[in-house]
Amino acid sequence: MRILGVDPGSQKTGVGIIDVQGNRIRHVHHAMIRTGKGEFDERLHILFSGLCTIIDQFNPECAAIEDVFVSKNVSSALKLGQARGALVAACGHYGLRVTPYSPTKVKQAVVGFGRAEKDQVGHMIRMLLHPPEPCPEDAADALAVAICHAHHTPMQKLAGKQ
Amino acid sequence: MRILGVDPGSQKTGVGIIDVQGNRIRHVHHAMIRTGKGEFDERLHILFSGLCTIIDQFNPECAAIEDVFVSKNVSSALKLGQARGALVAACGHYGLRVTPYSPTKVKQAVVGFGRAEKDQVGHMIRMLLHPPEPCPEDAADALAVAICHAHHTPMQKLAGKQ
Repeated sequence: MRILGVDPGSQKTGVGIIDVQGNRIRHVHHAMIRTGKGEFDERLHILFSGLCTIIDQFNPECAAIEDVFVSKNVSSALKLGQARGALVAACGHYGLRVTPYSPTKVKQAVVGFGRAEKDQVGHMIRMLLHPPEPCPEDAADALAVAICHAHHTPMQKLAGKQ
Repeated sequence: MRILGVDPGSQKTGVGIIDVQGNRIRHVHHAMIRTGKGEFDERLHILFSGLCTIIDQFNPECAAIEDVFVSKNVSSALKLGQARGALVAACGHYGLRVTPYSPTKVKQAVVGFGRAEKDQVGHMIRMLLHPPEPCPEDAADALAVAICHAHHTPMQKLAGKQ
């Protein structure tokens, strides 16, 4: 099963794709979508079309997106929310079922500890997936979200016997 | 020029479409996209695909979406933000340029007073556009956003002489 993981952000969004069969996990792709400094609505479109391009190219079967619960303030919550909305729309546009995971659940799945530091996630991703290129922090988080989804999906599904 | 106006909300989103030529404004369509009580990411997809269907049918040339500045708290800001993000993504998907307007600017354009009550907007929309069917509050707001955009667009563009 090919899983798309997304770590949403309005300035930069991490994207990761893994293949899972039984308990074997393989790195397929990771990328950052950077939105630049244009108008905010234009940046939302860059997120949407950027993720569409990646889905088009790698054809994942399902998507997992980190949920956004907390934010410094209402203004940054509105921005982060809009970014996530555009990304979920891209998944829906390709008929991908989206499963949300909390940051705590993602860390728990990858590091085994829900309040792990960010760099521990990056370390575990390097150990588990050996990405062929350097993996920015948010792309590592996106791969971690995909792994988290693999952990929460029944074995039969991962083996392709739905 | 055909203008799409959107009043975003995570449970119900108002949509309005008007035709503008010079200083003549004509009601074309209004609708509510209601997302029901399903999972939140599923509701975001209902917003995205609902707006796509309307754009497909009425073929507007540009879009105006009410901006979200304020919210009761961070949690509702995250929800409202995601709704708006999915709607902006739908516009971008059809190549529509999106212009954001603050609620104050919309009221100023339609009622002439930035702190007007909600029902004043509905009243003015009935007076200005004579919608053929009853117009729910959020759909009236969406039509008001479209009118606001007409007010802020140079005359030459509205006359089709770009």
